[in-house]
Amino acid sequence: MESQKSGAHCILFKNPPFLDQTGAVAGPKEGAGPLGANFDVVYDNIKLGEKSFELAERRMMEEACYLALGKGMLKPEDMDFFLAGDLMNQITVSGFTALAMQVPFLGIYGACSSLAEGLGLAAILLSGGYGEKIMMATSSHNCSAERQFRYPTEYGFQKPGYAQWTTTGAGAAILISGGQGQGLRVTSFTVGEVVDFGVTDTYDLGSAMAPAAASVIDYHFTEMQREPAYYDLILTGDLGQVGMQLTLELLGRRGYDIKDRYNDCGAMLYYPHQKVEAGGSGCGCSAIVVLGHIKNLINTGQLNRVMVVATGALHSPTTSYQGENIPVIAHAVTLEK
Amino acid sequence: MESQKSGAHCILFKNPPFLDQTGAVAGPKEGAGPLGANFDVVYDNIKLGEKSFELAERRMMEEACYLALGKGMLKPEDMDFFLAGDLMNQITVSGFTALAMQVPFLGIYGACSSLAEGLGLAAILLSGGYGEKIMMATSSHNCSAERQFRYPTEYGFQKPGYAQWTTTGAGAAILISGGQGQGLRVTSFTVGEVVDFGVTDTYDLGSAMAPAAASVIDYHFTEMQREPAYYDLILTGDLGQVGMQLTLELLGRRGYDIKDRYNDCGAMLYYPHQKVEAGGSGCGCSAIVVLGHIKNLINTGQLNRVMVVATGALHSPTTSYQGENIPVIAHAVTLEK
Repeated sequence: MESQKSGAHCILFKNPPFLDQTGAVAGPKEGAGPLGANFDVVYDNIKLGEKSFELAERRMMEEACYLALGKGMLKPEDMDFFLAGDLMNQITVSGFTALAMQVPFLGIYGACSSLAEGLGLAAILLSGGYGEKIMMATSSHNCSAERQFRYPTEYGFQKPGYAQWTTTGAGAAILISGGQGQGLRVTSFTVGEVVDFGVTDTYDLGSAMAPAAASVIDYHFTEMQREPAYYDLILTGDLGQVGMQLTLELLGRRGYDIKDRYNDCGAMLYYPHQKVEAGGSGCGCSAIVVLGHIKNLINTGQLNRVMVVATGALHSPTTSYQGENIPVIAHAVTLEK
Repeated sequence: MESQKSGAHCILFKNPPFLDQTGAVAGPKEGAGPLGANFDVVYDNIKLGEKSFELAERRMMEEACYLALGKGMLKPEDMDFFLAGDLMNQITVSGFTALAMQVPFLGIYGACSSLAEGLGLAAILLSGGYGEKIMMATSSHNCSAERQFRYPTEYGFQKPGYAQWTTTGAGAAILISGGQGQGLRVTSFTVGEVVDFGVTDTYDLGSAMAPAAASVIDYHFTEMQREPAYYDLILTGDLGQVGMQLTLELLGRRGYDIKDRYNDCGAMLYYPHQKVEAGGSGCGCSAIVVLGHIKNLINTGQLNRVMVVATGALHSPTTSYQGENIPVIAHAVTLEK
């Protein structure tokens, strides 16, 4: 049996699967941002006409799945597995979406790193011969997340300038096992460890997560023996303005200069006047930017090789109340045409 | 590329990995039960001397990991991946244990089905050539779970007779990639869908989860073209007395009679006089029974082929307060010597 690993963290797929159809559903603020035209559906109502924010989030994830399936003229029963994760306690958005899909389901949790965990695990399954078609999805909703992790948005709590705005959005992707042919593929998956650099402020997640992003980018280049120039774009998931600067600085100390090809989903998703403080965050942020916008740029030839580094903060309100630091993680997947 | 799937749900591993060393840590009630002698460490204090129940649970999972590593004379850095899940919001027990281990980490969530999800995903990674040694762990703690999902135990809320007792325990396992040689292996993984049979009572999880167990057992036998007699033991994770009876009835209607070889971890773990109502539950229940007790029975030749069907209820307090039914799932792994 030939190893599919290139080092302690990096898997280079022998049979890289296609990243085929995707669905991206966005909330009103995300639709009004600079990437709004890239999303399949934009809602002008934060509740999507549902009774609760939680039902609204579930509707977004389900709709993202049906959009991806519909574009590929596929049915849920054509899928071998459904992998999904979200920020709600007990990942209930994913669990209830899996109930709607009726596809063998594996729940994942990596906070906002879930997009990379889902894409990477789907590619692991396909490249390993465990199926032919897999759907994955992640989501977040500003109001369901804020009231669970911080305060209900109706309370009007004012956040510091380094805080981020939890994105309202859901993305789904269908991955199809390799074979020959042209197309966008998931070519590698670099799995990070959990790190803790002593940040305790749950509004300062950009600073907390930046060291995880820098580590996993370093692991990828070192283990793959690649230079940053291999990629047209290195894209972190939701570090925002604060975490971006810190990531550049941390990578600089390790001898990498990526600033001519670096961006962050959370920084791209909103205009400055939209008052999102340091940028977007949440499982839905990287999901709609990567599966809505970046995928289009690759498919139209504007980008060829992209590294997506999704970062997640693995604390809970309970661990923070109990005085713990914020443990963080990052995983990277590479998308190549 | 040869498929490793035997049907829509069942993966039969081409290179089945060994289930090598395990660690099982139990709380006082679990230690005083009929299986108490099978656990590596039994604490006589529900807080394990820690400041909080959450820290106690984390200590159990970490200790289970170090026990498994120690028995194999292995270090965390010998592991290719660490897979873990638990019942705490944001699976923080797993995340903080991963911080201690410093091994590339993939977080999973399947509620009490997490044991099977973790063993199955570890086997997927190893049989697919993605590494040589993987550690997985799951845990639950009576007091941390009860106060998160229901009421703090200090409140003294009285439960109905069909309710179950959340187990205080943690199990860890090291899986090693195949090759030749004798030994206990994870030979298949049957992945279930999410189902909902209309149960809304969050004390009646045995009834809620039984249909998921029956479905996945049926999928396994149908897709593998096997009879129940192939296994010495079919073991559900934590259905308790109520869910066990329902599972036997549901399987009977599908033409399977398994009662001469059927048991349930939640029913085995406590004596009747221990007042656990219908039996044990929680991610730690199947973890310590399977990784502490059943593994010993296989290694000593008292059992040869065991199907472990771990079931999980995928609701959250929020979805229940919002009037939703309880969605459930089950996954099966088979252990063969």
